[in-house]
Amino acid sequence: MQKEQIAEAFRTLQDDICSALEKEDGKGKFREDRWEHHSGGGGRTRLIQDGNVLEKGGVNFSAVQGPVHPRLLSQMNLPQGEFLDFFATGVSIVMHPASPQVPIIHMNVRYFELSNGTCWFGGGIDLTPHYVAEDQAAYFHRELQAVCSRHHPGFYSRFKNWADDYFFLPHRNETRGIGGIFFDYLKPDHEEHGLSKQALFDFVIDVGNTFAPVYTHLMAINKNKSYTEAEKNWQYLRRGRYVEFNLVWDRGTKFGLETGGRTESILMSLPPQANWAYDFRPEEGTREADTLRMLKKGIEWV
Amino acid sequence: MQKEQIAEAFRTLQDDICSALEKEDGKGKFREDRWEHHSGGGGRTRLIQDGNVLEKGGVNFSAVQGPVHPRLLSQMNLPQGEFLDFFATGVSIVMHPASPQVPIIHMNVRYFELSNGTCWFGGGIDLTPHYVAEDQAAYFHRELQAVCSRHHPGFYSRFKNWADDYFFLPHRNETRGIGGIFFDYLKPDHEEHGLSKQALFDFVIDVGNTFAPVYTHLMAINKNKSYTEAEKNWQYLRRGRYVEFNLVWDRGTKFGLETGGRTESILMSLPPQANWAYDFRPEEGTREADTLRMLKKGIEWV
Repeated sequence: MQKEQIAEAFRTLQDDICSALEKEDGKGKFREDRWEHHSGGGGRTRLIQDGNVLEKGGVNFSAVQGPVHPRLLSQMNLPQGEFLDFFATGVSIVMHPASPQVPIIHMNVRYFELSNGTCWFGGGIDLTPHYVAEDQAAYFHRELQAVCSRHHPGFYSRFKNWADDYFFLPHRNETRGIGGIFFDYLKPDHEEHGLSKQALFDFVIDVGNTFAPVYTHLMAINKNKSYTEAEKNWQYLRRGRYVEFNLVWDRGTKFGLETGGRTESILMSLPPQANWAYDFRPEEGTREADTLRMLKKGIEWV
Repeated sequence: MQKEQIAEAFRTLQDDICSALEKEDGKGKFREDRWEHHSGGGGRTRLIQDGNVLEKGGVNFSAVQGPVHPRLLSQMNLPQGEFLDFFATGVSIVMHPASPQVPIIHMNVRYFELSNGTCWFGGGIDLTPHYVAEDQAAYFHRELQAVCSRHHPGFYSRFKNWADDYFFLPHRNETRGIGGIFFDYLKPDHEEHGLSKQALFDFVIDVGNTFAPVYTHLMAINKNKSYTEAEKNWQYLRRGRYVEFNLVWDRGTKFGLETGGRTESILMSLPPQANWAYDFRPEEGTREADTLRMLKKGIEWV
């Protein structure tokens, strides 16, 4: 597994996902911006806007390299004097649908390599429904459980908990959505899982390939449902929470912005419109109040 | 100068500012929420919404106390074992007007005291016009220069530069607006300024009292100007930048959210609606492009 092969597989993943999303959307087309990173490499940012289903979304591919940033050294507990190069490649996706009946989704797969020989995979998929439907949440988690189980018996439960902990807004005491899976620092031949680099790669690609069928299914079963203006307003408030998570708590976003990543690609995750209302509390017995009750860690959706 | 006197003066300032804003707005009325802090003290959060001029804004007073949070110890380079209590009081304001012709404004005055006897004042006022008008920017800075000069000959230039540095979005290479003044850690009898605690208090109260006449003047001269839908859309994008600054870079917001402050009071600074458009670049020769050119550090507005 050379880094070039991994990057190539991620590029293919980006192509496949964009095709599948365009097909299900039926109207929106991705536009592409190619860009270069200040320290080497670059990416292909793809944006879809004003589709039938997808109001704004991005599918980013990047493969960048250069000297390791001091912030990363300190995050990894490496001495600041260390001179290391890194290589990082990944695909990152966020989709904001027009309808509050269709959930927001996020997916990321990534591979990281240092010039000292260390390397690891990371990634995950998580779902943020504006209104939580328990059967859809169960479907989503079953699909993730299936892909995890094909590779390691312990992955789903460990990565499901990791997602609950990661996609959490402490200042709201809410999860971002119904979670999913999140994993990081998966190193080849580590005693925790015993998987080779090839086996980890296969897992990560399998996760990537799970995205399109799962999300296009969720688009298909929800896209024709009608909604009210009040439901659209609720969507804007939930998108406000999405903005709060991404800008205040998401380590990937913060790291990218603080180390000179391409701002427009990083902030493609933000919604086209978000609203904030002071101290908004939905009335008991409404779908909004039911949703808030389900934005908690530790729910076994399967 | 006892801490109770300072808190009382800030409470009065909050009352005076709310009255002046209601009067100029002509329709919006502040609603008040009283709240208690988990470690002691509390606050009066006042919110105005759907006024003639002010779409959403908050004027917060708080006076809280308790054991010093570990994060503050590390920010202040104090050993983590130190057992200290703090007392903090302040007034904090953000106003989002309905019209893109009226600027967003932010004001803060604060006093901080530790049980080891250390104390300091901080604060500032800064303006974020959706469209920069040079004559209004000059007026705003002249007023700030005047209040500074009444107390110390070096304050305006030092605090103006401090605001340029503080209200800056590195990931956009833009200032938040046209700046203003920002100051922190003003300690009594410090060699940098030689002012007593009373003299610093007088300065800070004078800054607080400058807010209402300056902002109501800016409301008055801009509120009846018409605007287009395109200008309203530009306002939503600029509000997006305001959100980015507050959630990614503002140390006060981050500190509050990470140490269990009252979320709804802290995030009252967020606009009612903000938009994001991928890689939006205004055409050359437009008012939008002119505004972007003036969102730079180091402009001498006076």
